[in-house]
Order: sequence, then C-alpha cells, then structure tokens
Amino acid sequence: MNITGKQCINGQWVARSSVTFSSFDAATGAALPCTFFEATGEEVRQAVAAATAAFAHYRQTGIEERAVFLETIAGELDGLDDDFVQLVMRESGLPEARIRGERQRTSNQMRLFAQVLRRGDFLGVRIDTALPERQPLPRPDIRQYRIPLGPVAVFGASNFPLAFSVAGGDTASALAAGCPVVVKAHPGHPATSELAAGAIVRAVQRCNLPAGVFGMLCGAAIGADLVKAPGIKAVAFTGSLQAGQALTALAHQRPEPIPVFAEMSSINPVILLPGALEERGTQIAAGLAASATLGSGQFCTKPGLVIGFKGAYFDQFCDELAAAIGEKEPAVMLNRGILKNYDDGIDRLCRLPGITCLNGGRHHENRALPSVFRADSSLLQHPDQLLEHEVFGPVTVLVSIDNQQELLELLPELHGHLTASLFAEQGELNDCLALITALETRVGRIILNDYPTGVEVCDAIVHGGPYPATSDSRTTSVGSLALDRFLRPVCYQGYPDSLLPAPLKNANPLGIMRLVNGRWTDASL
Amino acid sequence: MNITGKQCINGQWVARSSVTFSSFDAATGAALPCTFFEATGEEVRQAVAAATAAFAHYRQTGIEERAVFLETIAGELDGLDDDFVQLVMRESGLPEARIRGERQRTSNQMRLFAQVLRRGDFLGVRIDTALPERQPLPRPDIRQYRIPLGPVAVFGASNFPLAFSVAGGDTASALAAGCPVVVKAHPGHPATSELAAGAIVRAVQRCNLPAGVFGMLCGAAIGADLVKAPGIKAVAFTGSLQAGQALTALAHQRPEPIPVFAEMSSINPVILLPGALEERGTQIAAGLAASATLGSGQFCTKPGLVIGFKGAYFDQFCDELAAAIGEKEPAVMLNRGILKNYDDGIDRLCRLPGITCLNGGRHHENRALPSVFRADSSLLQHPDQLLEHEVFGPVTVLVSIDNQQELLELLPELHGHLTASLFAEQGELNDCLALITALETRVGRIILNDYPTGVEVCDAIVHGGPYPATSDSRTTSVGSLALDRFLRPVCYQGYPDSLLPAPLKNANPLGIMRLVNGRWTDASL
Repeated sequence: MNITGKQCINGQWVARSSVTFSSFDAATGAALPCTFFEATGEEVRQAVAAATAAFAHYRQTGIEERAVFLETIAGELDGLDDDFVQLVMRESGLPEARIRGERQRTSNQMRLFAQVLRRGDFLGVRIDTALPERQPLPRPDIRQYRIPLGPVAVFGASNFPLAFSVAGGDTASALAAGCPVVVKAHPGHPATSELAAGAIVRAVQRCNLPAGVFGMLCGAAIGADLVKAPGIKAVAFTGSLQAGQALTALAHQRPEPIPVFAEMSSINPVILLPGALEERGTQIAAGLAASATLGSGQFCTKPGLVIGFKGAYFDQFCDELAAAIGEKEPAVMLNRGILKNYDDGIDRLCRLPGITCLNGGRHHENRALPSVFRADSSLLQHPDQLLEHEVFGPVTVLVSIDNQQELLELLPELHGHLTASLFAEQGELNDCLALITALETRVGRIILNDYPTGVEVCDAIVHGGPYPATSDSRTTSVGSLALDRFLRPVCYQGYPDSLLPAPLKNANPLGIMRLVNGRWTDASL
Repeated sequence: MNITGKQCINGQWVARSSVTFSSFDAATGAALPCTFFEATGEEVRQAVAAATAAFAHYRQTGIEERAVFLETIAGELDGLDDDFVQLVMRESGLPEARIRGERQRTSNQMRLFAQVLRRGDFLGVRIDTALPERQPLPRPDIRQYRIPLGPVAVFGASNFPLAFSVAGGDTASALAAGCPVVVKAHPGHPATSELAAGAIVRAVQRCNLPAGVFGMLCGAAIGADLVKAPGIKAVAFTGSLQAGQALTALAHQRPEPIPVFAEMSSINPVILLPGALEERGTQIAAGLAASATLGSGQFCTKPGLVIGFKGAYFDQFCDELAAAIGEKEPAVMLNRGILKNYDDGIDRLCRLPGITCLNGGRHHENRALPSVFRADSSLLQHPDQLLEHEVFGPVTVLVSIDNQQELLELLPELHGHLTASLFAEQGELNDCLALITALETRVGRIILNDYPTGVEVCDAIVHGGPYPATSDSRTTSVGSLALDRFLRPVCYQGYPDSLLPAPLKNANPLGIMRLVNGRWTDASL
C-alpha cells in the first residue's frame, strides 16, 4: 500500500513543506513506516482556490449526477482491501469487526445521501404563482429553492476514522448539498485519511467532475488558516469542546463570518427508574457496561452519567455495574494524547468532593482502565456542573437522587447533550410524561430502554443538541437532515419558465414534492 | 389614547426607572405629549424570567391553539382605531395609505403563520420505523420533529413601525414556532410600539395564555442586557450593519452562545440590459425613481446601485432618472438621526473620486433630498467596495460598464445583498443564464423586470441573503420559512405510541405530511 504522506490538492498529491510528522501504532506507540508532510499556508490557499473554482461547475450538477458520484465513492470505499482494514486498525487501535462495520456504515451513508438527492425534498421548493388580479396589488410569481453555500471545511474526528473523518458524514452531506469539500485530516490517522481521500479522488475522476471538488490537507497548524480562508463558506467539525469553540470564534471573526457546525461535548445522561432496576437491573448493568466501554469509551454518545433513585435497587445496580466494568479489558486508546487526557479526566474525577471510585483508575501499561465512580447528588447541583464535563474514554459516573421531583428540578439546569436515555417499566411510563418533556429540551435524541451508543444513520436521526453538545442545535451531523446545514434559500421573482432552474419549472421535471400555493404536491403546474 | 410609557412585563405595565425619553413628531421634530421610561436591568431580567416561565406551557400548546392566538392578535391589530393610525403617522412621518397598508400586511402576516401552523409541515416530522429483523443489527424506531428554541429577543426596526416591529414578522414567526417573545421597542416609535404591544397583550389574555408569552421593553441601553440574558435563546434583529454586528458578537460571547438572525445591509443592485433600455428606458426610469424614493427610500430593499452598459441608451436613462428623481418631493425621514445619517452618506458619496451628483444633495429644511449619483465603473472594483455601503434614504447610484463579460467578472466579488433585479427584453434573456446563475449566488431574491421594493409575504419569499445582508444566509425574515429559525430537531427512539407527541403518533392525528421510511405521506402508520 503506497502512502505518499502528501496533501491532495486539485486531484494531485503534492507536498512543499519540509515539516513532517509520523503516524503511530495505537497499541504499541511505534511509528509507522511512512512520513507525512504538514501543509503550508500556500497549500491551504491552493486547496481552497481549487474548491472555489470547482464550485461553479459542481453546484450546477444535476441531482442524478451527484447521486451517482456519491454511489461511486461508496463503491470505492467498499473496494478498499484487507491491507486498508489492517492499517486503520493499527492507526486507531480499534478491532477488525468495528472497522469493517464502520466502513460499511460510511459507504452506506454515501448511499443514503444519494437517495435523499433523488427524493429531492432537500431542495425545499416552494412556489407561489402570480395573482395578477389581486387587490390592492397583484402578486408576482415567486419560487424558492435551496442552493449550496460553497466550499466546506471538514475537520475529521479521531474516534471514527472512517465514518466521522475524510469520507464521513460531514463530507457526504456537503458533497450531496453541492459543496466542494476541503478536509483537514485528523493527525491521529493520516494514512487512513490518505487512503479514504484516494477513494474519493478516484470517484471524482470516474465521474468527470472538477478535481477541486475534493481536497485534503494534513497538519496540526492549518486549522485556523483553513477556517479563515475567504473561499470557505462553512465549517463542519467533530471533536473537543475547546477546539470547537476556538474554530467557531475564528469563523465569527472573519470579515465574512461563516457558520460552524461543531459537535463537541456530551455526557449522555441515563436515567434509571426504580421499576426497571427492580425488574432487570442486572441486565441493564451489563448493557451499560458494554455501552460505556464500546470502542474504548471513545464515542460521542458514551453514557457518562447515570442517575437513579436512592434505595437498595440502585445500590445493587451500582455494585453490578462496577463488577461488569471490572470485567472489561484495559483498553487501547486511539492515541497517547487521548490516553493522557483520559488519565487527567480520571484524576479530576478522583479529586471531586463526595465521589468514590468503584472500579478502575489511571491507565495501566498504556491501556485505559474502564472505570466507574459514584458521586454524591450534591455534585449534580454544583454551580460549575462538574459532572457534566465529558471525560473521553471508558468511564461513567453514578449518582442517586431522592425522587422524580428532584429529577424534574434538576433537568432544566443540565447542559445541552446529544442524548438522554430513560429506563422504565411499562407501569412507570404513565408518570413519565413531564420527565420526557423535560429531557426533550436538553438533548437532540431521547431514548427509551436502550443505550445511547449506536447512532442510526437515517432520515429521522438527530445527532445534535443544545450547546455545548453542538455549536448549533438547529442541525444534526448524522442522518439525511445533515445536508440542510450547507444550503440556503433563494427565490426567483417574475422569471419565465424557460429561465427557471429545473426544480422550479412548471412541469416539475424532477418529479419532487413541492409546496405550491400552500399545498404539497408532486404534480406539475 | 392612553400611553403609559411603561414596560410590558408579564402582562403588566410597569416602570421602575426614573430615566425617561420622548417620542418626536417626525415631520416637525416636536416632542409628543407623553413620556417613556427606560427599562432597568432588573426589568430586563423580569421580562425574560416571565418569558422563560411561560415557555414551559406555551411550547406545549397545540397547533390550533397557537393558530387561534395569532388570528386573535391579527384581529386586535385590525381593530386599532384611526387615532392609532394618526399616531403612527406622526411618529414615523409615513403617509396614511402606507400605514393602513402596513397594518393590514402585519395582521395578514399573523394569519399566514396561522395557516402554516395548521399545515403542520413546519414540524418537520420524519419517521423511520423499527426493523427488528435487520442484519447485522436491528433498527430501532426513530421519530423526529422540531421543537421551539425558547424565549426570543426581537429588536424592532424603525422603518416599518408595524410590519418589522413589535407585532412584525419576527414576533409572528417566533410566536408561531412556540417561542415567547421579548421585544426591545424601537425608540423611534415608542407610542406605536406600546399600542401594538397592547394588541398582543389583549390577545394573550383572550386566549388564556400565560402573560409572559409576550413582553416589551423600552430604552436605548437595554439591548445588550437583553441579548446576554441567559433565558433568551435566539435573537431576531432588523437594523444597521453596525448594530447587528454588535449584537451578534454579544450573542456569540455568551457562556451559552445563541443564534442571531440579523437583517442588516443591502444595496439591491439593479442591472439594466441595453435592449430593455432601448425599448422602455423612460418607463424603467420612472419606476426606479418611484422605487428608490418609496417610503423616503427607507426600505431594506431600496435600489441603491444601478448598473448598465456604456452607451447612448444608458446616458439617456441617467438623464431621465435624474429628472424623475428631481421631481420627487423632499422627504420627511423617520427621525432626525436618520436624516443626519442620510446627509453623512450623501457627503461620503460626494467625496468619492469619479462620482457626480446628478440631482439632490444634502437635506433641505429637515427634509431629505432625493438624490442620484453617477459613478465611474472603477469605483465598483474599489477594494473597499465603496459603492456597496448602504446609504439609508432616497438615493441611488448609477454606473455604466463595458459589457456582460465585465459584469460576470464583477458579480462574484459583490457583497451579499437581499435582492438583485434584472431588466431585459425577451430577446436578451437567452444570453442571461450565466448572469442569473451568478446573481443567485450573491443575494436571497432575484427579480426579473421589476423593482426590489415590495416584499411579498408568502411561502416562497426569501428576505435574506449572504453576509452582510444578513448574519445567517440560511434563513429569511419575511415569509413562512421565517418560522424555521426558531426550531430545532429532536428525535424519539424506541418510545411507545402512547408517549409520543401528537405529530409523531402512528395515527397522524394532526393529518400532516410526514416523511415515513423515506416517503412523504399524510397517511397513518
């Protein structure tokens, strides 16, 4: 497998810099036998210039052409061979089944967006036909659809080296929207990134699209240059709160501010009602232990806070969860930086007043120890909301409170998170309406009797939530709605049919659902 | 007509401050016989607290209940008497027909949102039903809809004292979305604001809604406090670029950043092709003169820049437009501050190199002089884009360029604006596709053979555009899509039908269009 270590700019692999860096085997810490070049400021400008030039053509491509492009990318991703899988495993420390599953998720994501394109509703077509006789003034013919914003900067995440990285959901949704993409490869998996980029580049070529539709740059320092590049019109990011906040600030300070869609931080609270614990506490403990340690706990949706009601059932549950976590193997983390951050997070938890470590602790032989803490409920009310600071890795914190009333008082004060899970028995559910309503206001996805890890890629999913879960709660970064982030409405007033774009023409040549004079229809005018 | 001059907080008219201000007759500059109190910081907190408390109930109101509320507001607005119309005229300097028309537009806007509520598509329902047999993993049942963000701060604009103010489009769309509203009344028409607020308060009472659903505060200094109040979850603003930028910066610097929808600045370029000028230059000159001076040129959509091709037709057009503008009466402006700003803008234009004042100039007897300038085309390429700085008032600038090629090179460099108008004859249109495509990328609304003033309130309208026209090009502040600004998606995973909110229930009790397993339908499951 040939890794160049270079930037992908306008379809070419190039490197001007003399500054290099390495990729490491996550398990052993050994450097892989390839060298990567840091992109220069000039290379950032070139990649953005190529994306800008490509936008003029790419934004005008038809729905079918773009759908085929996404499907071609999907095929190229599926075609990456076993050596690729082995390489991703080495760079990420994640097991083979996970990588194969994630690859399929990534290519299926491309295919989902192809379906969405063909459905055409993302175009948001609204037509109000002329009313020439209206008094006191006639109404002109006005027709609205949505157009792409322009080149998008995508910041690959470390924890899903395929599904949230170079060819991940942000790239898929931006390309689907008609926006060229410039990816900042995550330095934790540069070789994986190069091979995924190669798959996209081949698809660009096979589909005869302008080479600038996709570019990729490596380097820790280029993020700011990329966000500040005038040609970039939106940013998609998955990563830490600190980095997301910094990029958002940069984007807002530009002469032309641009939107940033950053998915940043979540502890994904899990609420256990007494009946559920009584009925199946042991089963829930096993499930939660698996969820909290899945992927070494390196999921945005890892359950990081578990709240139950004081009593014998919850005490027993805590013991069972601690035991179940204790049976989990020490975990290879994505990289040594993340392992260190995990240790720092564990240390921070250990120092909190009123907290007890039930199992786990600092790392052992470069593996993270799966850990469980039990905290006093007063910590939930701490003004700094100490229990809501995400610790990235296989740790969860258990808290017991008095009753549902205390919970209802607590919930409005919670930070925004991606998910909230509720475990309850049938008989308890009727008293849960206020609880569900309150949960809904704090997160993007509320789950009944299931664990937050595992984010379905579909039309209905929301992977988002109020700040600081994301920088913009009005969107999702997973699922077909993610495409909407990169579109804006524009309307045509008084144009003849011959000059209208296809989605707005009388004949409805795309056969899509449109809002015509206040009614949804796929009929022609 | 009884004007208290007080704040409207939780349905009560109160004033704690000893700081007062006056309202002025726009035409004479004389103070009206009523005194207004500046809201205190504590009053800002109280209004936001009332809105926050009301949100818990208001967000749960049904579609029909909210629609009736909006219609009740509409009825109350229609019921404001002739004294009200006279008062608005005095505070704004706008003529009676305009005020009566604007009042109707304002109440009809409320009724449009009532229709949108009943249509239900704003809920954005998407349902992916469970696939328990799917391999390798079952798919859970996931259902998405959109919920309101929370209390919205609305900053009333000066130039539409009804339609873009207390009971204007921002308030209507926020209330429709399920968000309580706290309005900062524009200091230019505080008495008008109080009476419009009174209409809303009466509707709140008649509909038995919590009083905190609507509040209004007066005072020049309270804007920052309102945007920073933790209970405020979004801001809607129409006004100057400078004020919009300041509010946006404040909102982004909050511990919990919130979205700001600011409509700020636009020169609404108008492009005249030679055939149109040859065929009907005189008519277009008359129409543009009317559009540029409508409402004393105090429209967001005033045509501020007119571009034609060099030649005798354009020269003649310039003469005709200058003559037509010269026939317009000197204009009463909304207030003396705006008159001064207009003079400053005229002075700035006069000082530009390569510009000639064809007619008009500085104000005369406290009336703004409708003005026309002709500028050298080099000014269009000036790095500071001097011709794209909005001068609020009855002035427009004419520029001639060589040909369509020069235009196509120019357009991508334009700032973002609200509208772009193209005047062309039938025979010219076939060569216009590249031009139309380029225009589309710089504005929110492109218009053929018509003037930009007059913004239709409907489903298809876009009153928005790329920065600096607005702070977020992905929205509109006029028309039914404006409601989307105040919603965010949330999804339910694995919930039984009995616990799902009405829009997500199997039976589709609201009878709305939903995306079910990838298909749009209003059928039940």
